[in-house]
Order: sequence, then structure tokens, then C-alpha cells
Amino acid sequence: MENPNWTTIELNEGERIDDLERCGYKIIQNTEMFCFGMDAVLLSGYAFAKKGEKILDLCTGNGIVPILLAAKTQAERIVGIEIQKQAADLAKRSVAANGLSERVNIICDDIRNAEDYLSAGIFDVVTCNPPYMISDHGIRNPDSPRAIARHEIMCTFDDVAAVAARMLRPGGRLFLVHRPFRLTDIFETLTKHNLEPKRMKLVHPYVNKEPNMVLIEADLGARRRLTVERPLIVYESPNCYTKEIYDIYGY
Amino acid sequence: MENPNWTTIELNEGERIDDLERCGYKIIQNTEMFCFGMDAVLLSGYAFAKKGEKILDLCTGNGIVPILLAAKTQAERIVGIEIQKQAADLAKRSVAANGLSERVNIICDDIRNAEDYLSAGIFDVVTCNPPYMISDHGIRNPDSPRAIARHEIMCTFDDVAAVAARMLRPGGRLFLVHRPFRLTDIFETLTKHNLEPKRMKLVHPYVNKEPNMVLIEADLGARRRLTVERPLIVYESPNCYTKEIYDIYGY
Repeated sequence: MENPNWTTIELNEGERIDDLERCGYKIIQNTEMFCFGMDAVLLSGYAFAKKGEKILDLCTGNGIVPILLAAKTQAERIVGIEIQKQAADLAKRSVAANGLSERVNIICDDIRNAEDYLSAGIFDVVTCNPPYMISDHGIRNPDSPRAIARHEIMCTFDDVAAVAARMLRPGGRLFLVHRPFRLTDIFETLTKHNLEPKRMKLVHPYVNKEPNMVLIEADLGARRRLTVERPLIVYESPNCYTKEIYDIYGY
Repeated sequence: MENPNWTTIELNEGERIDDLERCGYKIIQNTEMFCFGMDAVLLSGYAFAKKGEKILDLCTGNGIVPILLAAKTQAERIVGIEIQKQAADLAKRSVAANGLSERVNIICDDIRNAEDYLSAGIFDVVTCNPPYMISDHGIRNPDSPRAIARHEIMCTFDDVAAVAARMLRPGGRLFLVHRPFRLTDIFETLTKHNLEPKRMKLVHPYVNKEPNMVLIEADLGARRRLTVERPLIVYESPNCYTKEIYDIYGY
């Protein structure tokens, strides 16, 4: 059933409403600046939370991961942190219009200030779809919202791991989506912060192509032993997703 | 054409001669103790050496990797080191019978003593199919040749990386086959020794199964950036290899 709040919402220039096809939830996108990609959907599919658990989503953008996890899980509380005001505003409006304000909170600040708002060591799950690119990889416009979302300008992977390790309870789970070419940094930084990689899934556009995304679960203080899972293949043929991708999009 | 040395060779109990189907080369196997597996073949397929280069194979066992690389490459010199006398003897006899004694040398000693025989910093390529298992993973018989070949009893992965880093020239290439569950250790230990993972290929028995082997190239002192390659799938269906595996076995 349509949530009545969506019928009265006012959109600004460049904004549109997309249906998430789950629990009737929708999301406000800004096609110029903040549109979620498949990576956010795959991250939400890879993460899991039990009934009553608490989730913290770092670099939450327009709130796609908190809203998808609100649909998928029975987590009691989901908090998203986003440094860019325009993106955080989109997220707040979508959370309110979906009627999720009691379960989902959006904070607009640097993730490194998380403890100004939240108690450390209480989250069961942290999720993050961080900026992928090392900051000096040829950016034309370092102040643009897109550059900030994609490059490590305002947030490095070390920041993500440090904040996750600080906010998780012992044994708590960090779920990440990132790029395979950064894997050496990712492993090094996670273990530096006592986050032990436990599961890894590579995402290949086609079965015979290099992976272009990697999904990782790292658990705080866990024993060393990694399970590399079977690969996730996105396309059966051009424009035709595999059944596994349809299942993730459809939960 | 058959190498005449093979016609006069004497076999001990438990030994047999296997044809490698390349350049007429064969190998003596001991079915009880030292039989090469697909991992050694895939390692030889993944490694490459240019004309005139020098290769060092650590934990060489019955010499399978040096003999396959002698067939595949135009390397000028190939040295294998093996700590177990029985295995090193098999390797020496196979090298001689293949007429490879001028290009291939087998040393029987601990890899940590490599510098007692060889100059440091002169090898273009190091290869290694090391013991995969952490030493305390439930071994019944730690003195048996099989246990020594499979478990980190006489050689840890840190030893392998340390010796490789010491023996390679700057920019030299280490090629490894290992198990995916050890990936966190592998990355940590390689980078500790200034060996930068540059290429990685996961080997899956079937396309929809977890990988059970990983092939890695790490270059001494290289820039950080990893290419995760498309996966290598072993079986099309039970008992039927994929074309890629047939190509590797057939060079």
C-alpha cells in the first residue's frame, strides 16, 4: 500500500522518486548528484542483521542502504551518517516519507565525529559503500558532490575502518562493497583495526570477465580464516540479469 | 623423441614414471610420498619467464615445477630447493634423465639456507607451491613426508616470502599457488616483505563453487595496485576439464 506521505512530497529541481519495490518503500534521487548504484543494492543484499540488532551505515549518501535494510531486516535501529548536506537531506526526506523515522536516523556530519552522536561499541552491524578511488587519481573537480562520493577526499578507507572498529561491539560485523584493485589496502587496513576478513565475494559482470566489485564481511576481533565464496555474476547476456541478481533486487 | 636416459633408469619400490607430454619430458613419482597435483601444473602455467631469465623454485618437491618451466620457458637457469632428501633425490634423477642437468639444479636443504648456494638478488622469478596448512591444524604424523609437504612444519609462509624477497632482483616476480582461506595471511606477509600483489586468479572446481586454489603474482618493490583476474574454472562437468585447463596442461 502506498505510504500517504509520498503523495504530498515536494520535489526540487533535478529530483525524482524511485520505487524500491519492497514494503512499498521509495527513495528520492537527484540525478545530477546522488543516485544509488548496483553496489549499494548488492551491499544491502550481502549484509544481514538479526531481529533487534543495531546497524550503522557510514557514507550513507541518499539513504539507500538504511532504507533497503529497513525493508530486509528486523533491525531495531538503523543510523546513517553522511557528510554532504544535500545528500543527507534527501535521505532524511525519504526516511520520513517512508514512515521510517522511528527506526532510521540520518546524521549529517563527518563519520569521524560519530561518537558525538552515538555510543561507541554498541552496534552489531556497520555497513559502508565508501568512496572507492584514491584521492589523487585524476580528479577534475574535487569540490563536486560526485567527486566527494567517489574519491577519498573527505573520507579515507582508514577512516571507515577506524570508525567501524570503534562503533562495533566485539564480534560485530562490518559489511563493505569496494573495488578489487584496492584489495591489498583493504585487507591491510581492516586487520590494522582488528577487523578480520571472514567472507569475501567477487562480483563479475560476466562469468568470463574480471570482477569489478568485491563484497566483504569483516568481524571485530574474530579468528583469522577467510572464506572466499562462489562468485556473483551480474549478467547472463547483455541487459539480462542472472537469477541471483534478480533475487537480490527482489529479496 | 624419447630421451635415451629414461630407458636405463632404475626404479625403487613405490616409484613410477609419468609422461609430462611436453618436450618428451617425464618425471619420477613416488605414489606414497611425492606425487604432484594440479596446483603445481597451474602454478607453472601462471608463471612466466623471458628468454635468459633465472628462476628459483622453493619447496620444489619431486621437481615438477622446474621441469615444467624448463619445457615452457626459455629461462637460462632454473634452481629448485627441497628440504626432504627423498623428494630432492627424485627431482635430481628426473632432471638428469630428462637431459636437463645443464639448465636445472636441485639443492637439498632448508630454503632459509638458499644463500649458502646462490647469490641474493639475482633471480628474475621465484615460484613456490608451499605447504598450505598452518602447522597446528590437526596433524597425526608430523614427521611423515606428506605432513611436511602439506603443513607449515619445516617452512612457514613467512619463510617463503622472506627468502623470495631476498633472492629476487628489484622488480622480480614471485608466483605462488595457495589456498584462499589463507588470503589474509598471504597479503599481510607479502607486503611485509615488500612483495606487492599485482595479479590474482582464483581457481574454482566449478563455476558455481567456492574457489579451492589461488594463484598470485607479487612483484618486489612494485606499486600498489592489484588486478583480480577472471576466474579459472577447472571442470565443465564431472571428469571433463574446461578448455582452459586442457590448454594449461598442453601449453
